[in-house]
Amino acid sequence: MMRGEERRMAYDFWYWPSIPGRGEFVRLTLEACAIPYRDRAREDGAEALIADMARHDAGPAFAPPYIATDGRTIAQTANILFYLAERHECGPSGLKARYWLLQVQLTIMDMVAEAHDVHHPLSSALYYEEQKAEALRAAHGFRDQRIPKYLAYFDHALASEAGGWLAGERWSYADLSFFHLVEGLRYAFPLRMATLAGRYARVEDLHGRVAALPELQDYFGSNRRLSFNDQGVFRHYPELDAP
Amino acid sequence: MMRGEERRMAYDFWYWPSIPGRGEFVRLTLEACAIPYRDRAREDGAEALIADMARHDAGPAFAPPYIATDGRTIAQTANILFYLAERHECGPSGLKARYWLLQVQLTIMDMVAEAHDVHHPLSSALYYEEQKAEALRAAHGFRDQRIPKYLAYFDHALASEAGGWLAGERWSYADLSFFHLVEGLRYAFPLRMATLAGRYARVEDLHGRVAALPELQDYFGSNRRLSFNDQGVFRHYPELDAP
Repeated sequence: MMRGEERRMAYDFWYWPSIPGRGEFVRLTLEACAIPYRDRAREDGAEALIADMARHDAGPAFAPPYIATDGRTIAQTANILFYLAERHECGPSGLKARYWLLQVQLTIMDMVAEAHDVHHPLSSALYYEEQKAEALRAAHGFRDQRIPKYLAYFDHALASEAGGWLAGERWSYADLSFFHLVEGLRYAFPLRMATLAGRYARVEDLHGRVAALPELQDYFGSNRRLSFNDQGVFRHYPELDAP
Repeated sequence: MMRGEERRMAYDFWYWPSIPGRGEFVRLTLEACAIPYRDRAREDGAEALIADMARHDAGPAFAPPYIATDGRTIAQTANILFYLAERHECGPSGLKARYWLLQVQLTIMDMVAEAHDVHHPLSSALYYEEQKAEALRAAHGFRDQRIPKYLAYFDHALASEAGGWLAGERWSYADLSFFHLVEGLRYAFPLRMATLAGRYARVEDLHGRVAALPELQDYFGSNRRLSFNDQGVFRHYPELDAP
């Protein structure tokens, strides 16, 4: 519960209220950086989100998540995180970290999109059941080729950083996002991720570091955090998983 | 041909040498902003790119395109463009334009990824011929739902800008990228784009403005610019197109 002043200063955060989805990447940074926000669609419902999307004439968002502040909106997950980190000086600073973290975040979002497309390979407008045969084929390549390729890349990237974080000596929005990516992969592909466990030690270590961050414990224990389910980006369809 | 001094100052630009692909978005900004660069894989071949990718211990790129400068690499198309625009002060400045242009660029890249996935809906590791039946289904939704949804969004976004560009009174990397997106859609889906021609007047206008930019005419007439072909992101498979 925010005080009145904080409530006036708070960002309006907009995302679908029933799934973690891409919104969770923004929530993690808002929470860990202690940035006041109102999760508007969870307060007022999905209809309010749809109405707000239609309302914006300037700086419209193609899709949620987006944040509204000073009468304008900022959309695209990586762009929102980049903005918040700079505006609130949350995370490593310096030019090198700045572009490197955005690069890593965009690579994380690429893998998130691929993880989504495994269960929706043909169209987001079709139900999973309407493209299940195609999803079974897509899942094979994602499990066997893409997950190892991405995790090996992140593990290699972490090897070049001394502090154990993606950039420098402290955590950044990209570390928080990477944690959620691993959470999502473990939820959606438990058998495959169990097989790969231990193969990418730095990936496991980074996930554990973020899971233990004091800045996130209150959020993790709160109902502000949504659970994965079969409507979101990461879905557990047993038939799409394998060791 | 660059002079010796420019050659020393030039960025090493790395992308697959036989396709415009995502590299073209970077080339357009390097050329329009008159930033010296060497198209390394076009000079030395794809093998040189593969060797360079393996060589970088710090700041590795998950995939091309990337630029190398001061001994480090910057990857992810939107990140490269954001870096170049800031470093070389090319394009509109100001905080609002900064995040807005990155947001638009990321939305452009989302549509680029969807356009690619139409002909590779199951896996990039499979040939088109191995997923042609799925591509036919994916193309239907992309043509009928996604192209209109994206173009209507960009048209609406342009309506909120007075100057006719995506931000402010002058062109930006996002305008250049949007031009190439429309070029790619017209190449890959000529029948569909012909049907939609005129429905999004601001989209057509912006494409024409960039096509006529004095800063790009030398590039357009040079062999530095690669033509679309059936190996790239945008491919013309007649069976995937329809009015």
